[in-house]
Amino acid sequence: MILAIDVGGTKMAAALVAPDGAVRRTRRLATPQDADAETLWKTLLTLIEPYDGFGGVGVGCGGPMAWPSGEVSPLNIPGWRGFPLGERLAARFPGKPVRVHNDAICLAVAEHWKGHGRGRANMLGMVVSTGVGGGLILGDRLVNGGTGNAGHIGHVIVEPGGPPCGCGGHGCLEAVARGPALVAWAQGQGWTPSREGRLWVQDGSHTQEGAAGPYREDRETTGQMLAADARRGDPIARAALARAGDALGLAIASATHLCDLDVVTIGGGLAQSGALLFGPLERTLREHARMDFARRLSVVPALLGQDAGLVGAAALLLGGDRYWAS
Amino acid sequence: MILAIDVGGTKMAAALVAPDGAVRRTRRLATPQDADAETLWKTLLTLIEPYDGFGGVGVGCGGPMAWPSGEVSPLNIPGWRGFPLGERLAARFPGKPVRVHNDAICLAVAEHWKGHGRGRANMLGMVVSTGVGGGLILGDRLVNGGTGNAGHIGHVIVEPGGPPCGCGGHGCLEAVARGPALVAWAQGQGWTPSREGRLWVQDGSHTQEGAAGPYREDRETTGQMLAADARRGDPIARAALARAGDALGLAIASATHLCDLDVVTIGGGLAQSGALLFGPLERTLREHARMDFARRLSVVPALLGQDAGLVGAAALLLGGDRYWAS
Repeated sequence: MILAIDVGGTKMAAALVAPDGAVRRTRRLATPQDADAETLWKTLLTLIEPYDGFGGVGVGCGGPMAWPSGEVSPLNIPGWRGFPLGERLAARFPGKPVRVHNDAICLAVAEHWKGHGRGRANMLGMVVSTGVGGGLILGDRLVNGGTGNAGHIGHVIVEPGGPPCGCGGHGCLEAVARGPALVAWAQGQGWTPSREGRLWVQDGSHTQEGAAGPYREDRETTGQMLAADARRGDPIARAALARAGDALGLAIASATHLCDLDVVTIGGGLAQSGALLFGPLERTLREHARMDFARRLSVVPALLGQDAGLVGAAALLLGGDRYWAS
Repeated sequence: MILAIDVGGTKMAAALVAPDGAVRRTRRLATPQDADAETLWKTLLTLIEPYDGFGGVGVGCGGPMAWPSGEVSPLNIPGWRGFPLGERLAARFPGKPVRVHNDAICLAVAEHWKGHGRGRANMLGMVVSTGVGGGLILGDRLVNGGTGNAGHIGHVIVEPGGPPCGCGGHGCLEAVARGPALVAWAQGQGWTPSREGRLWVQDGSHTQEGAAGPYREDRETTGQMLAADARRGDPIARAALARAGDALGLAIASATHLCDLDVVTIGGGLAQSGALLFGPLERTLREHARMDFARRLSVVPALLGQDAGLVGAAALLLGGDRYWAS
């Protein structure tokens, strides 16, 4: 049994994960906003305090981080800059192995271990949401690269003269296809969230997420409203999803030419848009991926849902040395 | 000692390679043009007939091929389509291991084993010539991908609306930066090879290559004339090399974002153009590769010269399991 922890900008989650991947006793807490490093740490201690009977600790956390030490500086958690999360957890649970990796890596690992990547040796696991991230599995093993940062598919360049990106570059997949970029593009074309889209999000997935506090029209919910309006047939919202699909198709074509992949899985909010996203994605991918080895690639929505981050964090230990080499 | 064989469209080479990488008794023969499969095979047998005292056979051959079986269909050798090169060699040398891989892979492996990739765990070895190819080493091991085709950096997309590529797609790095594409682009801008450029190539590297027959103004020599004119200051020829550098910088930025590389080596004729190529390459790479893990990447000309293909073919066996996993 592994204690799995998933640390994000809006919430922290923990659970016990069995060797077969079953998730038990999940707990969630809102991540304190504008909190200092120790307040954040105490929240995490409160979250994990009830658990016992586990043999190791696996953690997925927002990047960037120093890997494999697990010194984290999550973009969405300003209170942690160079915070020694791995070291603190190792001190808290002496003698137990602690493994910390990027949350996007954990989602990819989960999908490889128990999702649509199962049994496929060469896989890119992507997440398309407020950011675009991923993890790369080649030869049945997680690829870390020199500093644990392999898998940053969000910064493959899809529009050389394209929009500025949070990374400091421009024209990256993330700069084009992340939710807020699509919302900004759609708004620039005249789109505003419809009343129906607002209601859908208010009644639907956002409140199910269990986020603390009342409904807020933040960047995440606006992205969900865009997707809802696209499903309802709004032409600008549909064009925005097609724009994301094109960019994803280009980046995936480049990735499979470089890595000769078997499968790409796509998770995150935007992946739930079905053919509105995957149709343009497939069209652009097939236009560019013409050699036999690239044609054989399949791109599918991720299988695992909201527990994926916890499953992947546990897999850092439960996967043997497949997902951890340092 | 390993018998190393390098099969290309214009020549076949063979040598004995010692465990320390020393190349001995190199022999070369012109690849018969317009020859059928058995004539090509007999030429190869003639080439390797004098060798004995080796423990295995390593082969680099133009792609595509079925890997790891070594059933080859080299683009530049029309007489071999699905030719069972690995099987034939295994039958010719019973009991000895035979390993056949893509020639671009062998160049990358050579550079990792004995060149500028030595001691670097995460490397992309590129060759920029009449084509653009490469091989990917991650976690100190050659990455094969699902079908042995990982490393096709030449088909990372650098101009989404760009020129058609031999692969059937368009906007690939190879479609922009391969020698013949640069020549065509320069000619479209009004460039013709200068008298000095012609003489340089006639006296220079082309004849040193030992190619059979008299001087021919073919695609390869025209590429060399373009590079020679760029060195002499011709503005269109310089712009053509800058165009290649830009495209390379973009593709390398995408590759290091995806794979978190330590070093990229570039071999092949164009890589000898020095700052005329590497200046624009660096400028574009640094414009796009802004995150710490991407900034740390160094891009250098390949160290090994014309023996690289033989060294890499031998390394398929001499590298233990680092460069071969099937």
